[in-house]
Amino acid sequence: MTATLIDGRAVAERLRERVAARTAELARHGVIPGLAVVLVGDDPASQVYVGSKTKQAAAAGLKHFDHRLPATASTSELIALVEQLNARSDVHGILVQLPLPAGVDSAAVLAVIDPAKDVDGFHAVNAGRLALGQDATVPCTPLGCLILIREATRELAGKRAVVVGRSNIVGKPMAQLLLQNDCTVTIAHSRTRDLPQLCREAEILVAAIGRPKAIAGDWIRTGAIVIDVGINRVAGPDGKNKLVGDVDFDAALSHAGAITPVPGGVGPMTIACLLMNTVNAAIRTRAGALGPLIGLK
Amino acid sequence: MTATLIDGRAVAERLRERVAARTAELARHGVIPGLAVVLVGDDPASQVYVGSKTKQAAAAGLKHFDHRLPATASTSELIALVEQLNARSDVHGILVQLPLPAGVDSAAVLAVIDPAKDVDGFHAVNAGRLALGQDATVPCTPLGCLILIREATRELAGKRAVVVGRSNIVGKPMAQLLLQNDCTVTIAHSRTRDLPQLCREAEILVAAIGRPKAIAGDWIRTGAIVIDVGINRVAGPDGKNKLVGDVDFDAALSHAGAITPVPGGVGPMTIACLLMNTVNAAIRTRAGALGPLIGLK
Repeated sequence: MTATLIDGRAVAERLRERVAARTAELARHGVIPGLAVVLVGDDPASQVYVGSKTKQAAAAGLKHFDHRLPATASTSELIALVEQLNARSDVHGILVQLPLPAGVDSAAVLAVIDPAKDVDGFHAVNAGRLALGQDATVPCTPLGCLILIREATRELAGKRAVVVGRSNIVGKPMAQLLLQNDCTVTIAHSRTRDLPQLCREAEILVAAIGRPKAIAGDWIRTGAIVIDVGINRVAGPDGKNKLVGDVDFDAALSHAGAITPVPGGVGPMTIACLLMNTVNAAIRTRAGALGPLIGLK
Repeated sequence: MTATLIDGRAVAERLRERVAARTAELARHGVIPGLAVVLVGDDPASQVYVGSKTKQAAAAGLKHFDHRLPATASTSELIALVEQLNARSDVHGILVQLPLPAGVDSAAVLAVIDPAKDVDGFHAVNAGRLALGQDATVPCTPLGCLILIREATRELAGKRAVVVGRSNIVGKPMAQLLLQNDCTVTIAHSRTRDLPQLCREAEILVAAIGRPKAIAGDWIRTGAIVIDVGINRVAGPDGKNKLVGDVDFDAALSHAGAITPVPGGVGPMTIACLLMNTVNAAIRTRAGALGPLIGLK
């Protein structure tokens, strides 16, 4: 068989359209969702990410507030900034771009973000609400992965899902989301024995390892839905850098039922979900009065 | 083979001794760990549990404060009581005995407990900290299960663990603990297909289903460590009620490597872990000054 491609760019675009439509409705209530982005230092990759985030936020009708601090900014300066942003009623979402410079206590800064404005979903309160099945802001990447899985199938209940990777940002919340959707979920990681065999059991396989082509084609069960979170830069045959995922995509095509490409799969979903989380944070500020949250559809 | 019995009564007794020893040390610093227990209504089972908790707390040298309210107590009365207990410096742990009467908003009451005094580990902040791998108060039953697993083996890394049951109180935190200990963890539940086969993969099997003998003997992998969280009351051959677990214990004996009996396995651990959580909550109130937390050993 040849796998169906799950087109993350198209899905993300449709999600951004829903976000923009909901934002336009909110404007009629006098609410403009606002996203504050805090960027410290001059890491080029972070600057690119932040640029994309603010551009897409603006395109969807959100306000954005950029806060750029020098690499010498201290933990207490950052905490003071976050506290100011917590207090502002026109800021509904606060995103502190990671990684922060080595001298900064990242955990301390993130812990200060008001959980209601924690649109990255990294705060312990949101992680806890997700774990307990309560209304939570879910980290953007696994949320995007779930939306892509639902593009491939709406019948998740009872399916064997394997998540490879146990980070706080992707693997663990991904496992929670799949469990909420009634999958039988296994979390694998660097200490897992016989990963190939485990992957072969997966009807849904989420790879979040960060190692190019770590998942071979014949590790994939026939017909499986494969979500590749990896974005790895490798030298291509022409000597130029290219992006590849954690899955050997070409080899996987003949095994999987549906698969996300890299690039163009999970990547575009992350920012779209950030916008969704921000608009939902704005909606939650006036419980009920602003209508329903943007859902997964 | 015939499985080794994991003697929960003996392990719990040794843990209580460690709790008592640590409590005696704290007394030399003028700190007496205090546990407030809130019991609403007159459910006979709850009265028995609360009686055991306060008795064991007293035996280990803790103070306990009993708050018994009529079944007619309102949500706001309970919240007011919890807020009083939050403010008291001699109360280090607050336990609200569940279930609360039907008219009470249990989630609202539990959410008010100061996470630092949430010795049941049910608060979203503690669930989140556990999920994120931060210092957390862990729910007593899965914590007790982990201690029993460590009685059977200290080599958890890479082991296949299957948790059957996905409750917030047992299954989900159990999975987090096993993941932290580097197991490859699968969570199974009512929607899981082919549970027998899945269980047969488990080197560590935790059954938290609440159905008598739901796990058959031949579902158990040879040599597996089996932790039975179930406490089910069934009519025995003599017509009298007896307690059985979620695992068919007699049949499991010839497959498992080590197994907890019911009663006398997980049950005794829960209160011992509650005492441990309470003393650790007291130690945390003076960061560093009172020495290390009680660990798993």
